[in-house]
Amino acid sequence: MDKEKKEESSAIHPAVAPLSYLLGTWKGEGEGGYPTINSFRYGEELHFSHPASGKPVIAYSHKTWKLDSDQPMHSESGYWRPKPDGSLEVVIAQSTGLAEVLKGTYSAEDNVIKLHSQVVANASKITITMKPHSLGLRSDLHGMEASIGLTHALLLMVREISRVYEMVNGDLHYVVQMATNLTTLQPHLKAVLKKLP
Amino acid sequence: MDKEKKEESSAIHPAVAPLSYLLGTWKGEGEGGYPTINSFRYGEELHFSHPASGKPVIAYSHKTWKLDSDQPMHSESGYWRPKPDGSLEVVIAQSTGLAEVLKGTYSAEDNVIKLHSQVVANASKITITMKPHSLGLRSDLHGMEASIGLTHALLLMVREISRVYEMVNGDLHYVVQMATNLTTLQPHLKAVLKKLP
Repeated sequence: MDKEKKEESSAIHPAVAPLSYLLGTWKGEGEGGYPTINSFRYGEELHFSHPASGKPVIAYSHKTWKLDSDQPMHSESGYWRPKPDGSLEVVIAQSTGLAEVLKGTYSAEDNVIKLHSQVVANASKITITMKPHSLGLRSDLHGMEASIGLTHALLLMVREISRVYEMVNGDLHYVVQMATNLTTLQPHLKAVLKKLP
Repeated sequence: MDKEKKEESSAIHPAVAPLSYLLGTWKGEGEGGYPTINSFRYGEELHFSHPASGKPVIAYSHKTWKLDSDQPMHSESGYWRPKPDGSLEVVIAQSTGLAEVLKGTYSAEDNVIKLHSQVVANASKITITMKPHSLGLRSDLHGMEASIGLTHALLLMVREISRVYEMVNGDLHYVVQMATNLTTLQPHLKAVLKKLP
């Protein structure tokens, strides 16, 4: 592979460029809560990288730990696929056994990214929830939803996830909201992270 | 956190122990093909780790590259959740925008792991395919399948994925099979990997 090709392949893909401010490692603290759990604080590291595959893909990973003991808690990883039209597709696998497909938008002007789940599938709880309404689909598909293999009615199932990321004075803020079978969409996690040098 | 607790949390979870031979970094070459594409060879690195979260989770990541130029090709990451009964749940996010939820079994005796997709969701193609038949569900749900937002009939959609991993003389072999809207389940990828020291 000659030098020119190598440089080309390690360049940032044009579709990724508006989100290049994300690339790197972010560290900080967050706060979690929900009507069904006690609130808690956590340490977090979040990493965005852009593999030199020539494809418009940002690799994403995140891990959290207990603030008092540094013991690992949650982790998740996936891929962000920005499009030139300002839309964004995201797939995330969570260590809890949850898989998310999200769609949304990014704004290059005010550095806000808004994502909403299209599919949330939980390997452990064998439930699959689809939200086709946000895809602009046929009206007879609106609200279609499948919850399969529910073992008992009180099993908590995540049905919907929204994620909003925002740059504020150089810090990365995010808020994750969640809806379950028992609760409507409401805040679950929020954190403020600083970019490591 | 005292020393005893720290040691306890960094130990291998009992549910992970039968799969602890996977932990580490594996490297080798693979071969891809499918009725709809030209066959190709690739370099691959695969990594399994066990975060000391005290949870029965193995973190999984994989990346491939072109053999002639070392240019990155595909990557994927996710989590494997083995159960004491010999079953296994896996969630994987792919750099192509695909999310997989798989279930299967492992055998500690002959070191074979067999996984089959329960959900395959493609962010780019906005399709969701569920295979509830393998979950032993109500018969009226058998064959339920949703393919949403298909833009034209020739769009290739992945509908089903099977993954078989096997240890043979210390090497890790795998075969990934795939079914699409145009083809039944058949081999797509196979590779042989050696554990790095």
